[in-house]
Amino acid sequence: MKPKRVGGTRDFSPLEVNRRNYIYNTLRKIFVNFGFQPIETPAIEQLSTLEGKYGEEGDKLLYKIRRNKNLLSNLKEKHSGNQKGDYDIETTLASLQQYHPDSFIPAASDKGLRYDLTVPFARYAVMHRNEIKLPFKRYQIQNVWRGDNPQKGRYCEFYQCDVDVIGSDSLLYEAELAQIYDQAFAAFGLEVVIRINNRKLLEGLAAYCGHPDLFQTIVVIIDKLDKIAWDGVAKELAGLGLDEEAIAKAKAFIECSTLEELTQLVGEVEVAQQGIEELQEVLSFLDGYEFKNQLLIDFSLARGLSYYTGCIYEVIVDTNAEGQEKIKMGSIGGGGRYANLTGIFGWKGVSGVGVSFGADRIYDVLEDLNLFNDEDFNTTKVLVMAMGEDELKYSFKVAQQLRKANVATEVFPDVVNPKKLAKKLKYPDARNIPYVMIIGESEMQDGKPQVKDMQARTETRQTVKEFISSL
Amino acid sequence: MKPKRVGGTRDFSPLEVNRRNYIYNTLRKIFVNFGFQPIETPAIEQLSTLEGKYGEEGDKLLYKIRRNKNLLSNLKEKHSGNQKGDYDIETTLASLQQYHPDSFIPAASDKGLRYDLTVPFARYAVMHRNEIKLPFKRYQIQNVWRGDNPQKGRYCEFYQCDVDVIGSDSLLYEAELAQIYDQAFAAFGLEVVIRINNRKLLEGLAAYCGHPDLFQTIVVIIDKLDKIAWDGVAKELAGLGLDEEAIAKAKAFIECSTLEELTQLVGEVEVAQQGIEELQEVLSFLDGYEFKNQLLIDFSLARGLSYYTGCIYEVIVDTNAEGQEKIKMGSIGGGGRYANLTGIFGWKGVSGVGVSFGADRIYDVLEDLNLFNDEDFNTTKVLVMAMGEDELKYSFKVAQQLRKANVATEVFPDVVNPKKLAKKLKYPDARNIPYVMIIGESEMQDGKPQVKDMQARTETRQTVKEFISSL
Repeated sequence: MKPKRVGGTRDFSPLEVNRRNYIYNTLRKIFVNFGFQPIETPAIEQLSTLEGKYGEEGDKLLYKIRRNKNLLSNLKEKHSGNQKGDYDIETTLASLQQYHPDSFIPAASDKGLRYDLTVPFARYAVMHRNEIKLPFKRYQIQNVWRGDNPQKGRYCEFYQCDVDVIGSDSLLYEAELAQIYDQAFAAFGLEVVIRINNRKLLEGLAAYCGHPDLFQTIVVIIDKLDKIAWDGVAKELAGLGLDEEAIAKAKAFIECSTLEELTQLVGEVEVAQQGIEELQEVLSFLDGYEFKNQLLIDFSLARGLSYYTGCIYEVIVDTNAEGQEKIKMGSIGGGGRYANLTGIFGWKGVSGVGVSFGADRIYDVLEDLNLFNDEDFNTTKVLVMAMGEDELKYSFKVAQQLRKANVATEVFPDVVNPKKLAKKLKYPDARNIPYVMIIGESEMQDGKPQVKDMQARTETRQTVKEFISSL
Repeated sequence: MKPKRVGGTRDFSPLEVNRRNYIYNTLRKIFVNFGFQPIETPAIEQLSTLEGKYGEEGDKLLYKIRRNKNLLSNLKEKHSGNQKGDYDIETTLASLQQYHPDSFIPAASDKGLRYDLTVPFARYAVMHRNEIKLPFKRYQIQNVWRGDNPQKGRYCEFYQCDVDVIGSDSLLYEAELAQIYDQAFAAFGLEVVIRINNRKLLEGLAAYCGHPDLFQTIVVIIDKLDKIAWDGVAKELAGLGLDEEAIAKAKAFIECSTLEELTQLVGEVEVAQQGIEELQEVLSFLDGYEFKNQLLIDFSLARGLSYYTGCIYEVIVDTNAEGQEKIKMGSIGGGGRYANLTGIFGWKGVSGVGVSFGADRIYDVLEDLNLFNDEDFNTTKVLVMAMGEDELKYSFKVAQQLRKANVATEVFPDVVNPKKLAKKLKYPDARNIPYVMIIGESEMQDGKPQVKDMQARTETRQTVKEFISSL
């Protein structure tokens, strides 16, 4: 049989795994430095935990799972003595089995695959509320699954990297998260714009336009600004019932470029004033901190998700930065403050704030901009090749000596005929192994292997010790 | 709603994640040092890739998955125009929907969750055969899922750590894998016995007893030796049709303790002689290598899986080692040589050898024996607490200074009333944070925070720089 993969899933080859781990490890190091701790939750959750949390569209994308037991016997067990009216389970099953033997599996187990890391985190927090201490700072780097139609850049299985703190209203966490974004992307060598806004300002915007009740709908429309531009937004706002004056007010609002300007415009709208004060407080924590990226207060930033209640973030690649003009990529990070995440599982009044890193998109951007330092990954440094049987045994010991000095080493398993050496060197070449040690009789006798530098195409005779100290 | 987890799955809290990552990272470092490279495969595979590979029992334990679309419309789509004889899909579905609305989901997508890492590796190798270079040394550390009835120590979702090389018959890899086991368990501080045998010897045993045809069945019986002891094995062999003489021969065979002894006994059985020579060759590679654990040639080692064809391994905790008497744990690792793994997917003649680490069991053993060094994990070292609003802003800067020196730091988000300090110190205490920096007005003015050593219960006044260099 010819094997195939499931659409929307990917295999990762060694270089890709190393690059992905570099991204996760870079983030992990920064999260830990800020006092965040790792948790992990299972891939399989109760469907009741997942369903109804991601909107109607999200529910459709959930993967359902169950054990692959014998279907018929399972069903009979479940439905035994359960015949009602004119409906006979035995007959029905017999027909199904006859004509569509593999078409049905019972969904009785009601399990599903993790769809994001936020809901499992809320479940975790509630189930472990007696052991965790608030504020609880956690990060989580794990796979999620979505049964979406696969297309370029959209996968059914991909990683999320989330960092959240729950159990405190303090805005110092909003400031920390801005620093985390700044330091992470600086570590990647990527220049980004960290956009920040506050949901209370959007509430203020709706009030300022005279439509406080339409707040959530207005958020959804303004969220499309990047895609449909102002004219599109204005049209949708008009469709919602806003008159020309209200639309002009909305435009003036989102076009403000400083907190002072906005204060002059809407300082008297109470909820807007709260949002302004919150952003001022965040900035006052960051006073004196030198951003390596641009922190941009952007009153047009909306974020789609309805559960945000305070500050919101979005990170985009800075296409003004040198060499990054060609990158057309949506947001590579986002997040915000939510007043009541654990409430869905019965733990009320726990405020939280968190951000997420779009690891797959970051990967693509780093690749496009040649920002991976592949030579930093710990891969095989030396391949030892032997010219004879005794030399092979000797090579095995040489490898051991190199490994003891933490020089990643392989031994070529076949005895190499000197006449075929050039051909055999294609193997380390294709593998990008930088050094080949060749051991023949004389090399074994004087303990000085021939060392080929595969890039410089030079050869020397060195003892293993000399070679190790030359690295 | 009260949240719950799926039976057989686990949440991992920060300490557990750190300990688990320590296990994986220790293994990873050793694998890389021996030239193995990481690959990753998706959790979701085609059922056709998985089914029929793990025996009848294994098939039953596979998790099947599909998208959570509208069932009925999905089914209608699939079966439209597909009415046969007296069977009407519409009527059937209507009945099902009426009486068992949530009982059926179509299995048309035919996807399943990864059951082990071996079959996905074979699929990977075949699908990437044009890019990989043989010999291909890969390691893989990922979750697998089995719909088993959960019980203590048996989970539905757990990690496997596999290290394999394919594309070479050389026995130097068998020697390397023994070294990998030795170095990994030495790194964990755990004394183990690495048992090794060869399937060709078991074939020789069957021949020596006069029943070469019963080889596979005899393997399965001898594999039970640890559980049912020799009397049980003898009884089952008798049940298989072996007479007293044959059973005595089998006993003499597996009780041999050296290769020399075995050579004297069965040197004339050709396949046994091959097995002996293979083990001798492995040992000759290891000549001069100083094992930190016991390498034990054990002619009674059988391993259950039918695809092994050469050397086989099993690792058990050395219960003779000091302090380890109480550990009753089955094998914590195993593996062997297989002649034709990729053959199932159409790539013939690729021999391989590999071993697996039982990460969950290793975790349990290390925990039982107190072998985790939890203080080595990178967790929060300092909590900064402020006595006033200005001090809080100042604390934020102090934290930044500490983090810049890679000292993992948190800021307590609330202003602390000096009278309530003792109560507030319960938080860093419960979190095992070793140092608390307290910043009041005077500390802010002279730049010398009060530093509490939470274990020694001492207090000093130091500048942040002094503190950093004291660490």
